[in-house]
Amino acid sequence: MRRINAAEAAEILKAQDHILILTHRNPDGDTLGSGFALLHGLLALGKKAKLACEDEIHPKYAYMHPAAEQLDFEPEFIVAVDIADEKLLGPTLFAQYSGKIDLCIDHHLSNTLYADTLYLRECAATCEMLYEVICALGVEITKSIADCLYTGLSTDTGCFRYSNVTPETHEIAAEILRCGADFDNINRIMFETKTRAYLKLEELVLKTLETYFDGRCALITITQKMFLESGSNESECDGIASLPRKIEGVLVGVTLRERKDGSYKVSLRTYAPLDASYLCGKMGGGGHARAAGCDLEGAQLADGKQKLLEIIRMELEKI
Amino acid sequence: MRRINAAEAAEILKAQDHILILTHRNPDGDTLGSGFALLHGLLALGKKAKLACEDEIHPKYAYMHPAAEQLDFEPEFIVAVDIADEKLLGPTLFAQYSGKIDLCIDHHLSNTLYADTLYLRECAATCEMLYEVICALGVEITKSIADCLYTGLSTDTGCFRYSNVTPETHEIAAEILRCGADFDNINRIMFETKTRAYLKLEELVLKTLETYFDGRCALITITQKMFLESGSNESECDGIASLPRKIEGVLVGVTLRERKDGSYKVSLRTYAPLDASYLCGKMGGGGHARAAGCDLEGAQLADGKQKLLEIIRMELEKI
Repeated sequence: MRRINAAEAAEILKAQDHILILTHRNPDGDTLGSGFALLHGLLALGKKAKLACEDEIHPKYAYMHPAAEQLDFEPEFIVAVDIADEKLLGPTLFAQYSGKIDLCIDHHLSNTLYADTLYLRECAATCEMLYEVICALGVEITKSIADCLYTGLSTDTGCFRYSNVTPETHEIAAEILRCGADFDNINRIMFETKTRAYLKLEELVLKTLETYFDGRCALITITQKMFLESGSNESECDGIASLPRKIEGVLVGVTLRERKDGSYKVSLRTYAPLDASYLCGKMGGGGHARAAGCDLEGAQLADGKQKLLEIIRMELEKI
Repeated sequence: MRRINAAEAAEILKAQDHILILTHRNPDGDTLGSGFALLHGLLALGKKAKLACEDEIHPKYAYMHPAAEQLDFEPEFIVAVDIADEKLLGPTLFAQYSGKIDLCIDHHLSNTLYADTLYLRECAATCEMLYEVICALGVEITKSIADCLYTGLSTDTGCFRYSNVTPETHEIAAEILRCGADFDNINRIMFETKTRAYLKLEELVLKTLETYFDGRCALITITQKMFLESGSNESECDGIASLPRKIEGVLVGVTLRERKDGSYKVSLRTYAPLDASYLCGKMGGGGHARAAGCDLEGAQLADGKQKLLEIIRMELEKI
């Protein structure tokens, strides 16, 4: 594994063709924004390139797809964007590409160093790094690329709200706006629009609200049954994980989301001094200081929730 | 009335002392951020200065107050910040200062040109203009000033979400972050924290949801009774006005908020092509293209809502 910077990543990409870009499962705005921005950039350079994702991409991200994507080629070079661990590819892509990733561009300090070359930097969104790489490629930041990059910047920072934002995040946002990013529409799609199905889901989920440890921990549970009852679905409930932490006095917000196979995806959101990445790490997961995740599956399904609460209790006692 | 720019506003302020800063009634983050940022700046220049507001300032804004504010002097120079119309001072301050305002710094294009000198510019927040004025004053942007300015920038743009954001907004945000603005805490206070009382209010208010004109207009009503029942209060429900517009398909969100005297404050939020300022203007109010307000009082109380809906219906028919 070799660590590189944005200019080196651009040089490597310039020398390659027939490039496959991988995004992570349960794709969010940053992995898709990074992947599609790069795809637009590579296509602009006349290369063959395509993007793959284990899960279906929600239609709300449709504006990022390039018109001219060419899918009909055998990849010769594989790039992973915003993927901290090969396991996050999802089972099919993992089986196909594990151990074969040539370049990884990622902002998760928990990155497992699985790629041949790695451009890793602490910043709010992988899209910040893609902005640099695309500039270094000498590609013009078109409106389409600006839209992709803005999506990652905005969704990974709760629209510039969270502590991961730096002055550079705002400076890149300013540049992207100058390139014509349709930011108000993107924010409207990502943050402002709630379907009636989602409002119903929110109502069902709020009923499951539990609080622990003098109200410093709040926990909500989303089940597959609730998706059925509300008509909402998993792709619609990214924002719901931020709900429990919003309650006054809460330092740790926990969201348990049931998957179709009965396992649970756990999302943790914390306020300082609690480190979500540390807490999830104890459960075999990882992420960022204020937002992290882990899985409850197999043997952990029975007592995973209690184990997680116990880990949180011990950390709260240290404050 | 004389139109001036930021440098001229700074020159005028430098030449004055015993300065009173006026903010608008129902004070929000932008009028308070602008007022307190200027207050900090003037105090740093060794001037006597103080800030006045008709209504009580919510404790969540307490971090903006300077420690060294001096209230014991007769004002010789009066500045209004973020106030489009003298009537928005509220009755007491209006009676005292109407016709006596020396300088107005404001970003509302609907400004009624009431001040002797006016620095008016279209931008997302009056705090953008205060950033310029304070720089022109030669005052260092301390952490306290940065906190005030960030508050206005953030609250008037829904944290950089709305169409009023420009590249300059992000550039100023970057500079303010470099000056130490405690932006994640400010955003937490302004956007992330919901009290249980507020959650209860939201539940009560959601029950009043009415939709009109094929779901393109949504209307909610907040009554004084709901404040009593939930334990919440008016100062807590600034964000609630954005609720009805969030529903999929809605182009005009209307919030009717009952005041203690039985009159109603109407808040309108629109999406293009509907102009909230135009719609509210027809009801004697004003504001911005996407967010505006008017009052229902006196004779209008009986049929004001129907009149407003009729104005909206006519505009929707033009699309």
